[in-house]
Amino acid sequence: MSYTELKRQVYEANMELQRRNLVIYTFGNVSQVDRQKGVVAIKPSGVSYDLLKVEDIVIVDMENAIVEGSMRPSSDTKTHTHLYRKFDNIGGVTHTHSTYATAWAQAKKSIPCFGTTHADYVHGEISCTRELTDAQINGDYEEETGAQIVDSYAHKDPMAAPMVIVAGHAPFTWGKDANQSVYHAALLEEIARMAYLTRTLDHSAQPLNQAILDKHYLRKHGKDAYYGQNK
Amino acid sequence: MSYTELKRQVYEANMELQRRNLVIYTFGNVSQVDRQKGVVAIKPSGVSYDLLKVEDIVIVDMENAIVEGSMRPSSDTKTHTHLYRKFDNIGGVTHTHSTYATAWAQAKKSIPCFGTTHADYVHGEISCTRELTDAQINGDYEEETGAQIVDSYAHKDPMAAPMVIVAGHAPFTWGKDANQSVYHAALLEEIARMAYLTRTLDHSAQPLNQAILDKHYLRKHGKDAYYGQNK
Amino acid sequence: MSYTELKRQVYEANMELQRRNLVIYTFGNVSQVDRQKGVVAIKPSGVSYDLLKVEDIVIVDMENAIVEGSMRPSSDTKTHTHLYRKFDNIGGVTHTHSTYATAWAQAKKSIPCFGTTHADYVHGEISCTRELTDAQINGDYEEETGAQIVDSYAHKDPMAAPMVIVAGHAPFTWGKDANQSVYHAALLEEIARMAYLTRTLDHSAQPLNQAILDKHYLRKHGKDAYYGQNK
Amino acid sequence: MSYTELKRQVYEANMELQRRNLVIYTFGNVSQVDRQKGVVAIKPSGVSYDLLKVEDIVIVDMENAIVEGSMRPSSDTKTHTHLYRKFDNIGGVTHTHSTYATAWAQAKKSIPCFGTTHADYVHGEISCTRELTDAQINGDYEEETGAQIVDSYAHKDPMAAPMVIVAGHAPFTWGKDANQSVYHAALLEEIARMAYLTRTLDHSAQPLNQAILDKHYLRKHGKDAYYGQNK
Repeated sequence: MSYTELKRQVYEANMELQRRNLVIYTFGNVSQVDRQKGVVAIKPSGVSYDLLKVEDIVIVDMENAIVEGSMRPSSDTKTHTHLYRKFDNIGGVTHTHSTYATAWAQAKKSIPCFGTTHADYVHGEISCTRELTDAQINGDYEEETGAQIVDSYAHKDPMAAPMVIVAGHAPFTWGKDANQSVYHAALLEEIARMAYLTRTLDHSAQPLNQAILDKHYLRKHGKDAYYGQNK
Repeated sequence: MSYTELKRQVYEANMELQRRNLVIYTFGNVSQVDRQKGVVAIKPSGVSYDLLKVEDIVIVDMENAIVEGSMRPSSDTKTHTHLYRKFDNIGGVTHTHSTYATAWAQAKKSIPCFGTTHADYVHGEISCTRELTDAQINGDYEEETGAQIVDSYAHKDPMAAPMVIVAGHAPFTWGKDANQSVYHAALLEEIARMAYLTRTLDHSAQPLNQAILDKHYLRKHGKDAYYGQNK
Repeated sequence: MSYTELKRQVYEANMELQRRNLVIYTFGNVSQVDRQKGVVAIKPSGVSYDLLKVEDIVIVDMENAIVEGSMRPSSDTKTHTHLYRKFDNIGGVTHTHSTYATAWAQAKKSIPCFGTTHADYVHGEISCTRELTDAQINGDYEEETGAQIVDSYAHKDPMAAPMVIVAGHAPFTWGKDANQSVYHAALLEEIARMAYLTRTLDHSAQPLNQAILDKHYLRKHGKDAYYGQNK
Repeated sequence: MSYTELKRQVYEANMELQRRNLVIYTFGNVSQVDRQKGVVAIKPSGVSYDLLKVEDIVIVDMENAIVEGSMRPSSDTKTHTHLYRKFDNIGGVTHTHSTYATAWAQAKKSIPCFGTTHADYVHGEISCTRELTDAQINGDYEEETGAQIVDSYAHKDPMAAPMVIVAGHAPFTWGKDANQSVYHAALLEEIARMAYLTRTLDHSAQPLNQAILDKHYLRKHGKDAYYGQNK
């Protein structure tokens, strides 16, 4: 893929964040990796969506050095590249401070799988990371945020749970490309909102049992999936 | 009714789901039955509303075999046809994951009749089904979901309570045709939202007493109704 | 005022209900009285806002007999005329099932005056009526609803608290004309929403003390008011 | 800056309040100071945003006397000028009754710093003022409101926490100019909403620890900031 096409896809995915009401002002950023070229395209830091142009998208290498672009890349770039280096089956990453997902992050709680809307996309709870230690915060903060996320996936395939919430901070989501990572960000926000309502309606609400959780996930994913037109 | 007209009506009812903010992406599906012809028209599986066309609507028979259409029907088709077979006075069915109705489903709670907004449309509480057993989940899941709904109507006329929530899942609503089933889906979402607010404002809030519940329902329904222009 | 002009003003006020997101479908109704002519103009029953026309507005006398119009008036007409007969300083009445105000009605709770947004418009709490008895419900229901509202104003000027919530039902508001009654309906919804959030944030939150309550109300009302341009 | 340009900037900032859904009807007001000329431009009292024109903006001196303009200035003018006199590094002030920030004000609670969205803009909690005494309310009320705000900043730089909530009332925010004060009003509303959700999800939720609070604030502010393009 040419840098121009990569930047265009990343630009479109970033603009979708605003259309889906997942960001205000300059919040949020989306990236996409080109693994053959070893580069990542990402939103520039602190630019408003109303002013963002395709050519503003910054190309960096896997170690965060700027390859092409006149602007400074997102201040969260190191978290994105960390995820691309550690999760070799993901192609795009989205970071937002979407309201309900961020509320769960601020409460430092994983989101229980209360229903099939959740089970259709994530096979189990949506994890909240452990909190960063003071040493991690005062060290390479954005790199450590990535490391903390990866830590939550020791026993889990990143694509079977393409969304995570960082304790005290906000969500990160990913997918096969930038566009799908935004799709997962929008789904996470809706799942987080439904889970908030469920929990406040009944503080002792219980998650789905394993049988239905498996059923819904496997209806949409894996070799026997029967949802949609492309199987 | 011609297949073309049936598909047009089902298409319009599906598009109304999006206009009423009851669905995101490819969520939700609406169908309508033609009992003389013994067929059901339903949304195809996993198609986005922005791309949906009249000719994409699939016609199936009462046992789910495709009669006309090149796409795969909604993965929930068996639940729809089950309802048409068992409830002989309904003409349209809607399934959504609308936010507040789904929160009650996830909390596995029936919605108490807290006020006249509810009493105008449903004569009593809006039932939450029992949970499916593991055997039902691993058997013919969508068929069993329909059976679980029908089970809740052993002593109740489906048209006197044209909306139900499936435990751990989301709502189904119905009506005399596809269009009215969407109308009931929108009303259910508003009733569910008001009931959520009532319950969280006062966890010991009590339902309406029977006299006012009867009064409001019978103002709109039955031989002495005096609401609207067509009585 | 001519019937034509009266109908035009009532039509515009009804349409404003929809623009302010206070109603869905055919919910809600607004009326205005012409005390010289002894008539009330009101929305017809069960007509959708998208189809409503000026000429559909119905003119009735103070005892609910149709004076002009080919449609049936709102099923809540008797409540409106009751209020006009008992509160001689009001000129317009609005009834909605707006979400947050209705949640307070369903919880059967008066809205405490938690802040200056409330104190600017209502001098004290916003009353919730007592519940109707079974005899009242099975008698002349809409007339009794009006009587129950009037009962809450035994020691209060209707214009010093131009909004009330009917237990188990929803709000009624009024003003010097139809337009101002809708303005009060919109303010009530916002006040009810803020009060809901305050109460759920802290179930022991206390109302404002009397001194600031008086100050804010008198900044906007009475002979020493200094808010706005027309004093 | 000419009075014309000052009024234009204040007009634009006031209109932004409506576009950001921070106000309804005539609620809210924004001002900007010109310290060289010793004047403040502010919205007129009680004028609806749909009717507001650039030439309606009123110019007053630092003691609230009208310098230019035919309309009465906002009834909150004395609070604005009080803040300009006491906080010599601020250039614009915004007052709204935005929903979630007002709910915290009505609950008379400071907003704990639950996450990085908050920490990015305010270095610590967002203070709720003490309540006014009866003597203050019955004295020079708007002046005393300003004094109560200033009181909360005895040990704090106003620009390190450019937002405050007034107990029982609503928020005030400020910035280097009118436009930035509105930006802070919109951020406060989003921070207040996230904090409401966090608190109702878990009534014992704890604020961020100091290390991450410092990290996020200093990423955006001060000599080592690395967020955005203009550092």
